[in-house]
Amino acid sequence: DRSSVASFRFADLAKHPTDVVRATIRSGRYGQHTAGLAAGKLQANLVILDEAYALDFARYCQRNAQSCPNVGMTDTGDPMFRTLGRDLDIRSDVPSYNIYRNGKLAGQADNIRDLWTDRSVAFAIGCSFTFEHALQKAGIRMRHIDEDRTVPMYRTSIETVPAGPFRGGMVVSMRPIPKAELERVDEICRTYPQAHGAPVHFGDPADIGIADLVQPDWGSPSPVGPEEVAVFWACGVTPQNALMAANLPLVITHTPGCMIVTDVAEDAFPTVVR
Amino acid sequence: DRSSVASFRFADLAKHPTDVVRATIRSGRYGQHTAGLAAGKLQANLVILDEAYALDFARYCQRNAQSCPNVGMTDTGDPMFRTLGRDLDIRSDVPSYNIYRNGKLAGQADNIRDLWTDRSVAFAIGCSFTFEHALQKAGIRMRHIDEDRTVPMYRTSIETVPAGPFRGGMVVSMRPIPKAELERVDEICRTYPQAHGAPVHFGDPADIGIADLVQPDWGSPSPVGPEEVAVFWACGVTPQNALMAANLPLVITHTPGCMIVTDVAEDAFPTVVR
Repeated sequence: DRSSVASFRFADLAKHPTDVVRATIRSGRYGQHTAGLAAGKLQANLVILDEAYALDFARYCQRNAQSCPNVGMTDTGDPMFRTLGRDLDIRSDVPSYNIYRNGKLAGQADNIRDLWTDRSVAFAIGCSFTFEHALQKAGIRMRHIDEDRTVPMYRTSIETVPAGPFRGGMVVSMRPIPKAELERVDEICRTYPQAHGAPVHFGDPADIGIADLVQPDWGSPSPVGPEEVAVFWACGVTPQNALMAANLPLVITHTPGCMIVTDVAEDAFPTVVR
Repeated sequence: DRSSVASFRFADLAKHPTDVVRATIRSGRYGQHTAGLAAGKLQANLVILDEAYALDFARYCQRNAQSCPNVGMTDTGDPMFRTLGRDLDIRSDVPSYNIYRNGKLAGQADNIRDLWTDRSVAFAIGCSFTFEHALQKAGIRMRHIDEDRTVPMYRTSIETVPAGPFRGGMVVSMRPIPKAELERVDEICRTYPQAHGAPVHFGDPADIGIADLVQPDWGSPSPVGPEEVAVFWACGVTPQNALMAANLPLVITHTPGCMIVTDVAEDAFPTVVR
């Protein structure tokens, strides 16, 4: 009963270490987005599926490592995500879960204790927060963050490499970057394979099948200035689409924006807690 | 019958493209090391095991991505390594195979057509050739290559993160690097997560449990000069040891030095043929 406990606002949590953040989420008192929580720590997308599909999903991640950087896999049936945190219970420590049945969103929940089984496997997939923070530290502005909007995302004509039931087009996010910074952006992002890596495309959106930058498929448009170039990164929506297309009986993910908050340093590689 | 066909020497093959290299290997006429063949193309270590162990091995690779960079996984039972090459038959296109039964080397073969089953899964694991070539292109000399020796390799006190039956100590390779080049070496290698990535240690070997640099566990010693530092990279012998320790009924690997020659560019990421 969520009404029986005091709910936490973002500002209450923002300065706390990861153990307090996760304990608060676990108690059901915080169910909102995680951007800006636990500064310096890796955050990740969540995918939970039955072991029967886990090997194919691992293949899909390997074959499409820019869209689906595999930053963690639990042991089968073990709800503790031991490689990503101390006492990280993946059944309860994410603020909000999306539950998909037969490829369709069937509900949301603040924990999935009743859905986790001894055949469940959780995957953590790297996310753009990591490289955005690295670029910001290097003095490169992220317009959608400065303007407090969701980054624009687009379907493309780039096909992912299929594995088992998983397949589909690559989804990209776009950030306008000053021409003079392009090379530095590429160099920095290349060192973050755990967070979508180097951009997949610079410049003309038509080259990758995007008709109109002003009409993103998700998020808000970011106008590209005269001294800027549109830069495109593989996006974590790609595996979400592949998962829906696979039409599995049950898949659980995080609710967009409500990520796994790990104890792993944002620039760690491999992405394993020490 | 290997005596009935003309055998190829390294020099006969060194200038040929990957399709000729693999066709020659497939025919049984070349069974030697692949270093220097197919310049600019990714070469990789091979691990073949039963699907029952494949998910745990994928986990082991993910958790120990510096020792075991996962650069490819076949579909279960499909001997064609479609993500790494056109017409790459993993049963015959590696010059020499090691066959392990219950954790012990039980034989070698120039093909494993009779051992591949509809439950087999092949993994390709990145190798040091890739970053060595990148360092050489940047003007950084590799002493063991200049002196035509095998790089020195050492057991360490660094434990890998276990997954299922796979566990054990990290094995590292060591290359002496001029002090002035250390930062550049680190920066370059960081951009090759598919090939062991950044060094795991610089300097005092005792810090990682190595008693004496002059006595490597494998390979030949490389003396470290007064203006040099000993630099240590995670090494592909690590998963070999983990595989032997797992004591599985059957594991097949390449014979050391006799790698998978792929069609994938050496600096490609993800490591998928285009």
